[in-house]
Amino acid sequence: MKLLVINPNTTQAMTDSILEMARRNAHSNTTITALSPEYGPRSIEGHFEETIAALATVETVAIHRDQYDGFVIACFGDPGVAACREITDKPVIGIAAAAMHMACFLGHKFSIVTVMRRAQPFMEDLVRQNGLEAKCASIRYTDLSVLDLDADPRRAGRDLAEAAKQAVAQDGAEVICLGCAGMGLLDEQIRSVVGVPVVDGVVAGVKVAEALHSARLRTSKVAAYAWPESKELVRCSPTLIRAAHR
Amino acid sequence: MKLLVINPNTTQAMTDSILEMARRNAHSNTTITALSPEYGPRSIEGHFEETIAALATVETVAIHRDQYDGFVIACFGDPGVAACREITDKPVIGIAAAAMHMACFLGHKFSIVTVMRRAQPFMEDLVRQNGLEAKCASIRYTDLSVLDLDADPRRAGRDLAEAAKQAVAQDGAEVICLGCAGMGLLDEQIRSVVGVPVVDGVVAGVKVAEALHSARLRTSKVAAYAWPESKELVRCSPTLIRAAHR
Amino acid sequence: MKLLVINPNTTQAMTDSILEMARRNAHSNTTITALSPEYGPRSIEGHFEETIAALATVETVAIHRDQYDGFVIACFGDPGVAACREITDKPVIGIAAAAMHMACFLGHKFSIVTVMRRAQPFMEDLVRQNGLEAKCASIRYTDLSVLDLDADPRRAGRDLAEAAKQAVAQDGAEVICLGCAGMGLLDEQIRSVVGVPVVDGVVAGVKVAEALHSARLRTSKVAAYAWPESKELVRCSPTLIRAAHR
Amino acid sequence: MKLLVINPNTTQAMTDSILEMARRNAHSNTTITALSPEYGPRSIEGHFEETIAALATVETVAIHRDQYDGFVIACFGDPGVAACREITDKPVIGIAAAAMHMACFLGHKFSIVTVMRRAQPFMEDLVRQNGLEAKCASIRYTDLSVLDLDADPRRAGRDLAEAAKQAVAQDGAEVICLGCAGMGLLDEQIRSVVGVPVVDGVVAGVKVAEALHSARLRTSKVAAYAWPESKELVRCSPTLIRAAHR
Amino acid sequence: MKLLVINPNTTQAMTDSILEMARRNAHSNTTITALSPEYGPRSIEGHFEETIAALATVETVAIHRDQYDGFVIACFGDPGVAACREITDKPVIGIAAAAMHMACFLGHKFSIVTVMRRAQPFMEDLVRQNGLEAKCASIRYTDLSVLDLDADPRRAGRDLAEAAKQAVAQDGAEVICLGCAGMGLLDEQIRSVVGVPVVDGVVAGVKVAEALHSARLRTSKVAAYAWPESKELVRCSPTLIRAAHR
Amino acid sequence: MKLLVINPNTTQAMTDSILEMARRNAHSNTTITALSPEYGPRSIEGHFEETIAALATVETVAIHRDQYDGFVIACFGDPGVAACREITDKPVIGIAAAAMHMACFLGHKFSIVTVMRRAQPFMEDLVRQNGLEAKCASIRYTDLSVLDLDADPRRAGRDLAEAAKQAVAQDGAEVICLGCAGMGLLDEQIRSVVGVPVVDGVVAGVKVAEALHSARLRTSKVAAYAWPESKELVRCSPTLIRAAHR
Repeated sequence: MKLLVINPNTTQAMTDSILEMARRNAHSNTTITALSPEYGPRSIEGHFEETIAALATVETVAIHRDQYDGFVIACFGDPGVAACREITDKPVIGIAAAAMHMACFLGHKFSIVTVMRRAQPFMEDLVRQNGLEAKCASIRYTDLSVLDLDADPRRAGRDLAEAAKQAVAQDGAEVICLGCAGMGLLDEQIRSVVGVPVVDGVVAGVKVAEALHSARLRTSKVAAYAWPESKELVRCSPTLIRAAHR
Repeated sequence: MKLLVINPNTTQAMTDSILEMARRNAHSNTTITALSPEYGPRSIEGHFEETIAALATVETVAIHRDQYDGFVIACFGDPGVAACREITDKPVIGIAAAAMHMACFLGHKFSIVTVMRRAQPFMEDLVRQNGLEAKCASIRYTDLSVLDLDADPRRAGRDLAEAAKQAVAQDGAEVICLGCAGMGLLDEQIRSVVGVPVVDGVVAGVKVAEALHSARLRTSKVAAYAWPESKELVRCSPTLIRAAHR
Repeated sequence: MKLLVINPNTTQAMTDSILEMARRNAHSNTTITALSPEYGPRSIEGHFEETIAALATVETVAIHRDQYDGFVIACFGDPGVAACREITDKPVIGIAAAAMHMACFLGHKFSIVTVMRRAQPFMEDLVRQNGLEAKCASIRYTDLSVLDLDADPRRAGRDLAEAAKQAVAQDGAEVICLGCAGMGLLDEQIRSVVGVPVVDGVVAGVKVAEALHSARLRTSKVAAYAWPESKELVRCSPTLIRAAHR
Repeated sequence: MKLLVINPNTTQAMTDSILEMARRNAHSNTTITALSPEYGPRSIEGHFEETIAALATVETVAIHRDQYDGFVIACFGDPGVAACREITDKPVIGIAAAAMHMACFLGHKFSIVTVMRRAQPFMEDLVRQNGLEAKCASIRYTDLSVLDLDADPRRAGRDLAEAAKQAVAQDGAEVICLGCAGMGLLDEQIRSVVGVPVVDGVVAGVKVAEALHSARLRTSKVAAYAWPESKELVRCSPTLIRAAHR
Repeated sequence: MKLLVINPNTTQAMTDSILEMARRNAHSNTTITALSPEYGPRSIEGHFEETIAALATVETVAIHRDQYDGFVIACFGDPGVAACREITDKPVIGIAAAAMHMACFLGHKFSIVTVMRRAQPFMEDLVRQNGLEAKCASIRYTDLSVLDLDADPRRAGRDLAEAAKQAVAQDGAEVICLGCAGMGLLDEQIRSVVGVPVVDGVVAGVKVAEALHSARLRTSKVAAYAWPESKELVRCSPTLIRAAHR
Repeated sequence: MKLLVINPNTTQAMTDSILEMARRNAHSNTTITALSPEYGPRSIEGHFEETIAALATVETVAIHRDQYDGFVIACFGDPGVAACREITDKPVIGIAAAAMHMACFLGHKFSIVTVMRRAQPFMEDLVRQNGLEAKCASIRYTDLSVLDLDADPRRAGRDLAEAAKQAVAQDGAEVICLGCAGMGLLDEQIRSVVGVPVVDGVVAGVKVAEALHSARLRTSKVAAYAWPESKELVRCSPTLIRAAHR
């Protein structure tokens, strides 16, 4: 399949590491492209940035929807996923949902380890929106920013491994989900410290997209993700206006 | 207080009726302005449109954040509310959250009556995100579109009243929340048919904004709604770039 | 509006501070009266006292139901609120429900800080009864009794601020609800220590009552809060017998 | 054991049928007394009446707490149970809680069949307060009043059996709980129609009280049901004042 | 009644202590027999062992179903209970469900104290399956194995009491459930340290079985526990083949 | 990968259709084998049969655990999955869990359509155990038995399609999960009638197993699925005794 991995964070180094994780774990007959939207925040750490990135992601899917067989949204806030599912019926997979659902097959409960405190309530909402409260042991945050992951990977890995250890020791976690698209290359370091499976969302997203594509399963168009209603989009970009039509 | 009511649906007739409902129910010392963002869909019925409207709403709050004491987001999907709360600490109130919380003081459970089927799962997510599942008896939909409300208010009122009656008779609803910003002027018609309190979100939003302002309660900045982190917003509008700075 | 604030704790000093908080935060066109029932415990810290206070509160509303436009029940156990709603259709607002719902507009989750340990399970039930489990980060208790709040406000403020700090640091609270009607005057002290919004239930109760009154929203009479059925009340007070009739 | 069954509804015919059900199902070494409080409503169908009955029940337990080994509160709203548990450490069992917990051993889910519509939200709260939402298939109401049960038992049995059949056929109920203390003598009639176990709360309450007494299990005094704090009860009855002291 | 207590752990010393607890707490007219299945693990600490024990327990009930009036499954994982309920309509009571439901009458919330860590997620599932999440404060584990309980009861009692104390002090527990059938004889030791009611599942199981038998309440056969469908059981034991027929 | 699909129902025709569905949807580099345990019920429709099948499935995994890279348990009750995960760290996937998790990527909520009524409570437990209550719209049953699926596929397809249509029209389902391993070949028939994605558990199970294997994700051994403790298994089969050792 031809799979487009979109990094809503407009930072090339992060897109590079996402692409590396995706390619390492893709099937041999999957072709992966990774890119960022044409605009948006360097990194996504709050709702303001996520709201910009969500629209930018929708525009990116709109531009490429005919060229690819599926889409992975590589930010652990799953920005724009619901909207993207309306403008295509091909698989659109958020890495947070993918990581959490995959984690459910690996242990009794998972914890998410992530960047700064403001990410915690954000991810609590995400867990609830996916209906997975009962399987989420905790969301542990650190002092890291998203861009620290690339700037100082050693420290990042150490801090995340420490958070993961506490999740396993104190919260009942049996699996760790990495709570940011830029953490994938740290997975082995964390796993070796904490001794439980570590799920990178990018990897999980690729595998879920491949699975759905291979099983010919497409997004339901009966309600939540029906094609957009026909209407005027006042002063919106041509991309969005085209996207609104099937 | 000076209160800005933002209608994320870019339809003037709807903005007019929203303003009328807001003014009718505001305190005498509240000054209400109502407007739509500079761009966006004529009406919001799905995630695609909501994603556009969310960013347009954030930009609108960004432009006006120093001129007003509080903001009501007049679309029953509460688009952009979380993001707006990051760029100001003044009250930012979504009408869905406002209607649902106010309804809890009026009866044991509320139902939402709304437009077409695709709105139902959307609002289920909203109920869950607000943590009010236990108080929501049902979400009943009709065949109406958002713009039908203005185009044929008689039919709209009749269909919504019928949905409301079923919610009361079969689902255990004791209060009805009107599930669209454009339904306010139908409240008396529906109330007279169904015999239980009918809560318009615009009214509820104005009252909650006034309440918080009067009590000098401002948005918590400790985590979920902290001011945006400092970073580059690539190719974003000057409005957004300014908004990112406190 | 004419608003009656009932302090179910029969302690005048507490009623005085409740009145002060209510008046400070009321709209200019709201007239506030505060009083205690004619009988009942000096303070309410358990179910036994709450059961007495609930009936005393109902009798108090019964006596005054024609003289006022709304009622605030100023005890963080919301004693008798459901019963009072049956004997009037004007707003009857419990301060616990009011504080918790208002807190939902200010941050992602709230914690309650309260008096002695026995209050904790009591308030857990209250949170559940209001269906707000998902928004309540924790209920933190101290060694204080209700009457300690007035006897030694400095210590009370310090202990509550400490509990609030732990709620923010460890439990994910972004807003603090003061878990007793007698804590209002400590709000600034606590807010200055903990750095997040602090919601006093009396203030919240007054604002919600004003909001509903202004929006002409009255209690639903379709089921949970229908007028009492006609029947004999054996050896009950004349007040109660009259209250049973609309 | 010596067991006191308190009927908070002050109707002798109902107390008689409660006593009959209790005695039929008690162990041979259990002595049952049944009585009503000295005051209160003839029947309990709403919160107003329940609030009166709760205090009357507490006074009744207070008067008799030294003469009996356990107490069953025979009203399906469990009025005053929490308060009664504070003034004794002997078992105090509400028939609603008893019926629901016992039903859990008999089938996958239970439904409650009860009197008029206003009882439904009341019992929904009760189910939630007992934490049994996941085991309650539905609460089905009829047009009956509490006193209709005695006045026209044939119709009552027929209407309740019909409600029970619908609960089994449509809601997934496998067990039926009778949602009023006065329904016990109808159990066989309903069971023969509906073909699933029918649990009378009075019977369940007696069995649970016997079970706890026999196992020497007493109410925990560490928090929720600790002995009342020492304090003045202003203008309360001598019975209540004595009750407040262990 | 004639009650069969089945210890799915094939360790005679454990069966002996279970029998002692059961007899101590049974009514005078209850005759208790205790035995283990003919095969199975010495102790049950995980799902693998539980799966073996479940089938062994079913076979044991199958063999004895006509000789007894009820069955208690004395392992805190309730192995095979649902299956056993299909092949008889007499009470089949798992000690975990019995302990948890009884605990609900004794305090606001219970905690379970149990053996090694792997038991914790197992029991979390059990709590959820019984729908009692809201009443379970925590599940605290120790370093003990099941067989340590008999081998070194002093240490076991001390470690469990310590876990129980933490549950009461930190988790809000008001009642302790002993999370293994072999802990019953430690109940007094733990209760004296922790000061709250301690519920042994064997005792609770016996009391619930007696209660249901006395009230002539039998398992519902309408769905979840209907008699097995008629069909071939390939290469299964004669006991199982006979069990499949009513 | 070498994947073993185990059909716990000992019916060859069903195993054949399972194998066909598995092979149709497997990646080209996956080798699928399908077989039934050496003993067990012809079909699984209740807990009694499921308990037998669970142990038979564990023995089957035990025998083959070194020859395969992963295991799919092809019965929509997921019998023995937890136990199997203890005796290997390779993926062990139950088809119910796989279908439900995959369905979450395709629509807002899924419904399960299944055989006779007794399957409904069984599957409700399964949904809860997987923590997916919020995503499950309903479980609709028919009059079919498991073996009817093969005996009269036309009727089976028609009845299941009818149940699926009701789930979509009345319950809010957007995706249909086929609630039995023997329904796979009916997927197209049902999809064409109901117009939403139809997920066969066998297909989902194969895709999830492939995904985890490809991503080198293995079962967590820290608690719930740790290797069995060392102990005597009295009179158990040599297969089980060997299985207990890593």
